[in-house]
Amino acid sequence: MIRIALAQMEVVPGRPDLNSAAMLAMIDEARAKKVEIVVFPEMAVPGYLLGDTWEQQAFLRDCEEYGRRIVAASRGLCVMFGNVGLDWAKRGDDGRVRKYNAFFVAQDGELLGGDHFPYPFRIKSLQPNYREFDDSRHFYSLRKLALDLGRQPAELLRPVAVTIGGRKVNIGCILCEDGWSDDYGLKPVSALKNNGAELIVNISSSPFTLGKNNKRNRVFSKEAQENGIPLAYVNNVGLQNNGKTVYTFDGFSTVYDGCGRIVAFCPPFAPAMMTVDLDLDISGENLAPVTTVPDDQGIPIVFQTLRYGTAKFLDQVGLKKVVIGVSGGIDSALAAALYTNILGPSNVLLVNLPSVYNSATTKNLAEELAKNLGCLYAVVPIQDAVDFTVNQFRQTEIVNMRDGSSSRLTVTPFMTENIQARDRSARVLAGLAAAFGGGFTCNANKSELTVGYATLYGDQAGFLAALADLWKHQVYAVAGYINDVVYGCEVIPASVFRLVPSAELSPEQAVDEGKGDPLVYPYHDYLFRSFMEWWDRATPEDILAWYAAGELEAKLGCENGLVARLFPSAAEFIADLEKWWRLYTGLAVAKRIQAPPVLAVSRRAYGFDHREAQNGPHFTAAYHKLKEKLLGATR
Amino acid sequence: MIRIALAQMEVVPGRPDLNSAAMLAMIDEARAKKVEIVVFPEMAVPGYLLGDTWEQQAFLRDCEEYGRRIVAASRGLCVMFGNVGLDWAKRGDDGRVRKYNAFFVAQDGELLGGDHFPYPFRIKSLQPNYREFDDSRHFYSLRKLALDLGRQPAELLRPVAVTIGGRKVNIGCILCEDGWSDDYGLKPVSALKNNGAELIVNISSSPFTLGKNNKRNRVFSKEAQENGIPLAYVNNVGLQNNGKTVYTFDGFSTVYDGCGRIVAFCPPFAPAMMTVDLDLDISGENLAPVTTVPDDQGIPIVFQTLRYGTAKFLDQVGLKKVVIGVSGGIDSALAAALYTNILGPSNVLLVNLPSVYNSATTKNLAEELAKNLGCLYAVVPIQDAVDFTVNQFRQTEIVNMRDGSSSRLTVTPFMTENIQARDRSARVLAGLAAAFGGGFTCNANKSELTVGYATLYGDQAGFLAALADLWKHQVYAVAGYINDVVYGCEVIPASVFRLVPSAELSPEQAVDEGKGDPLVYPYHDYLFRSFMEWWDRATPEDILAWYAAGELEAKLGCENGLVARLFPSAAEFIADLEKWWRLYTGLAVAKRIQAPPVLAVSRRAYGFDHREAQNGPHFTAAYHKLKEKLLGATR
Repeated sequence: MIRIALAQMEVVPGRPDLNSAAMLAMIDEARAKKVEIVVFPEMAVPGYLLGDTWEQQAFLRDCEEYGRRIVAASRGLCVMFGNVGLDWAKRGDDGRVRKYNAFFVAQDGELLGGDHFPYPFRIKSLQPNYREFDDSRHFYSLRKLALDLGRQPAELLRPVAVTIGGRKVNIGCILCEDGWSDDYGLKPVSALKNNGAELIVNISSSPFTLGKNNKRNRVFSKEAQENGIPLAYVNNVGLQNNGKTVYTFDGFSTVYDGCGRIVAFCPPFAPAMMTVDLDLDISGENLAPVTTVPDDQGIPIVFQTLRYGTAKFLDQVGLKKVVIGVSGGIDSALAAALYTNILGPSNVLLVNLPSVYNSATTKNLAEELAKNLGCLYAVVPIQDAVDFTVNQFRQTEIVNMRDGSSSRLTVTPFMTENIQARDRSARVLAGLAAAFGGGFTCNANKSELTVGYATLYGDQAGFLAALADLWKHQVYAVAGYINDVVYGCEVIPASVFRLVPSAELSPEQAVDEGKGDPLVYPYHDYLFRSFMEWWDRATPEDILAWYAAGELEAKLGCENGLVARLFPSAAEFIADLEKWWRLYTGLAVAKRIQAPPVLAVSRRAYGFDHREAQNGPHFTAAYHKLKEKLLGATR
Repeated sequence: MIRIALAQMEVVPGRPDLNSAAMLAMIDEARAKKVEIVVFPEMAVPGYLLGDTWEQQAFLRDCEEYGRRIVAASRGLCVMFGNVGLDWAKRGDDGRVRKYNAFFVAQDGELLGGDHFPYPFRIKSLQPNYREFDDSRHFYSLRKLALDLGRQPAELLRPVAVTIGGRKVNIGCILCEDGWSDDYGLKPVSALKNNGAELIVNISSSPFTLGKNNKRNRVFSKEAQENGIPLAYVNNVGLQNNGKTVYTFDGFSTVYDGCGRIVAFCPPFAPAMMTVDLDLDISGENLAPVTTVPDDQGIPIVFQTLRYGTAKFLDQVGLKKVVIGVSGGIDSALAAALYTNILGPSNVLLVNLPSVYNSATTKNLAEELAKNLGCLYAVVPIQDAVDFTVNQFRQTEIVNMRDGSSSRLTVTPFMTENIQARDRSARVLAGLAAAFGGGFTCNANKSELTVGYATLYGDQAGFLAALADLWKHQVYAVAGYINDVVYGCEVIPASVFRLVPSAELSPEQAVDEGKGDPLVYPYHDYLFRSFMEWWDRATPEDILAWYAAGELEAKLGCENGLVARLFPSAAEFIADLEKWWRLYTGLAVAKRIQAPPVLAVSRRAYGFDHREAQNGPHFTAAYHKLKEKLLGATR
């Protein structure tokens, strides 16, 4: 029997001083509880997503110093924790000091090493270089080390012998990805079991994304069961970011018994120290297995992530107040309800910014929303400022300094649409936010961001795009959940849900006449998702092939019959497809480069998890061929 | 004797259709010139910097298809080129189809393989995962392949036998980084020489950065000389980007003889096909070595890169006209001269945007600049709009919807500064740019970007930040070069160089009274460079240690005696250091996330070459200790 504590701490990225202080307090708590092994997450000392802070030698020395203090504090118990492991004598692939993503095991003030390994720490076997991760940029890998030593990686995976109750217990120490051995040739869990491990401890720093936990539970349960070895997984909570993309960490630290059953888990999105008495010999028999784990896919967890991530982000950047432009539409209504739930109504200023194109319908809905939430509310009409600007432009003399001739510019209605959008955000909201002592929010959703259906320095601006990883149909669903569950009453007026989505920037977007966005969300949401979120990215070539085969709706997961209803002919279908693909890979990229940070929810968010270049659209040779065939057939 | 053609083509990223068409034309030209081997750059078919376009299977199939057309065109000569190499049956580390950064050798319509290697192409040995590169995200490495095959990487490096004039010539095929073997344990050039290579061909896709070419020439000359083997290096020209950072490719394809002498090179920044008759037996003896290669560090090459990169970027995004806000200061004057040199004066609209704080001095300088350049010119005063905004804010009733009470907001002078900056850019320049049919430029320099000394949606906005990789002192130097060399007359008025740098947003920044920016560029330029550009990033801990040791100016490379003059006491020095470090790692990060694309010039530009997280400032334990000691000593 081992008493093990899962220290699901909040890791503050880039702050070894704060993290080590928190760890020292938790070690004292563990000692008081007679814990034999206390386990902290991966990179518990430095944090994980730090960008090129890893290139600062002073920072590395600092992490080493704070790590030493943790080791020194391990009197009377075993402390396991993640930190950067350094080999000052060797260089990494980038020519800098060699760094490892390392697992430290300390007991009674000493690091427990192993004579078969060149360092007094273990290292991560499988480094992620996909999605938002780029471990190989900073950390030397086990595969490279094995090659240098003339060994196979599996030979280097040996357990650490920890003394528990007078006897040596062999513990297999792995990091995060190492648990996912089914995706790779290397199988760290079985390698360690074969080398004598009696327990696997997996320390992790794994951001939340929809559906991740169920998948992890399946994989880890299978690993534990197939190898007949219990597995303790410890993940951190908190918020970390890569600049453009902001990730929540849900913790969800879990213990699996040797039969692969979940015997305990920490609540998601909350710091915790969970103590488990684990019997290594009769695996799991003395612990009642947990049968249900929280949902990790549905709207409740989406809301929980949004709330946790937004609240932490506000904290991290030091904002206590926000200004939100509310149009009467669903996106800004959701933003208003979310921020009010976090900050309280007296710290949220909702601003309606009508021009001549805004209907009484939406203006009234914006006010009703503010009333329901009990926020601060202001109406700042923009028409005078917009008229001033348009007139100023029309009257401005453009002088040709070569010959002294002069001319005037023309302002079209489309230009005026963008002038309105920028007037609202860059003139009013940014200025009011400063005067209110806060920031202003970007309420753009993922569908808009995909094709750049937002104005740069206009509605795309703000300190955080909290909703920009939600497709439009998810925006509606979360808004409904907020009414039904979070507030338990209709804070977002029912009419907002029934309104046609519209920017209300011109007579062509008059909501009372049922006119609005050019996006047909029930189709385009799913089309865009296939371009952007799918593991194997769909492209026009794939879409057209599925269309030709009559299986597009089934593939995309949208409503059956929708495509034929929207596009009576192949020519119309193709024109729509090409229009949005050109925007997605064209102008929208330019806009995203200057977009606010995006809070990640899905399995792929814009920003660092979707690397993109401003290269413009391309259609493959096979696409052109298929298109010709289809257009020939329908003409 | 081999007649080899270095096909220094412009590679269009993401456009295998365009690239292969250009290659087919160059192959015909080579055949007509009786060339025996024509060599194209690394990733000549797809382009190199493509973000996650590599995850689109349709794109990969497309590259394969266009690659087959190149192979088919190799009748009567040998064609060497870079393309993505695919193993559809195996997975990469990310679980997707396995991709290689590959070197293809085709002759008479067939790919030349080698029975010792599992693929009919060579692969890159040393993958860069530093700076703007992340090869391991997409491409499987030689080290991993070697480990899978149970071999050492060097064993897999064997030359390809090409038939030239009836005899087999063994050619060592490497890619880019493979030439830099002195930085790594693996030495591809000597491995290939040991395995029988008579000539090394290095195909590359290497962005220009200051000082890179001289370094490459040193390293490659040494490799050629030490191994006694000639080396042909072929790099592409053109422009590629990673979203936030835009890179020029200078080509500079070079042939080194077996004594390490440069015998020929292509002009930088221009497409070229250079034919060289190379004698493999008497290395270099029959070719006169080139003794001088163009400067790669000075101001002329900085200007050339800026001009090439800006022109190509305009082309790529389809802009033929620009609007530039001109303040009378040096940054906007340089931007005006640069864009006018590229687009011609009738496509450049210079706009002066005075408020009450702008002096007659700067207004006159802006007009004089426009006159000298012969551009279009307009004056758009912003004071009325700013006053309108401030008054509208002051009059806006903020209603508390909970109790119906109402209040007003206060607008401080600092807020008004930012209102001015946003009014200029988001209201006027963005609107005028649309009406003019172009984009508007961001004129921020690297010193400003480092500490966020620019307003978001204000002077930090624009379609491209062409000058944002230049420190302030480089801005002056390039501006001087433009007068002296490019135009050969004073297009930028001499007074602009003498003016104190100032934003002119308040009475505290009155230029005629010699008041201006809080940045002391002759010191802060160099301090910031040490934080940001240095290979081993300097931090406050390092800076303070050098300050204490009296070696700071020597380390930073700034004027001797400057530090003591600026900061009479350690306390003042420390306050300044902490202030800028907090901004650099704090608010400035938030601003950079929303900054325009930055044109890279230096060895580290903001954006993808400087990964950063919005984590806020940290000071190490050693820093705090040193600070206490210093403050104790001076008190």
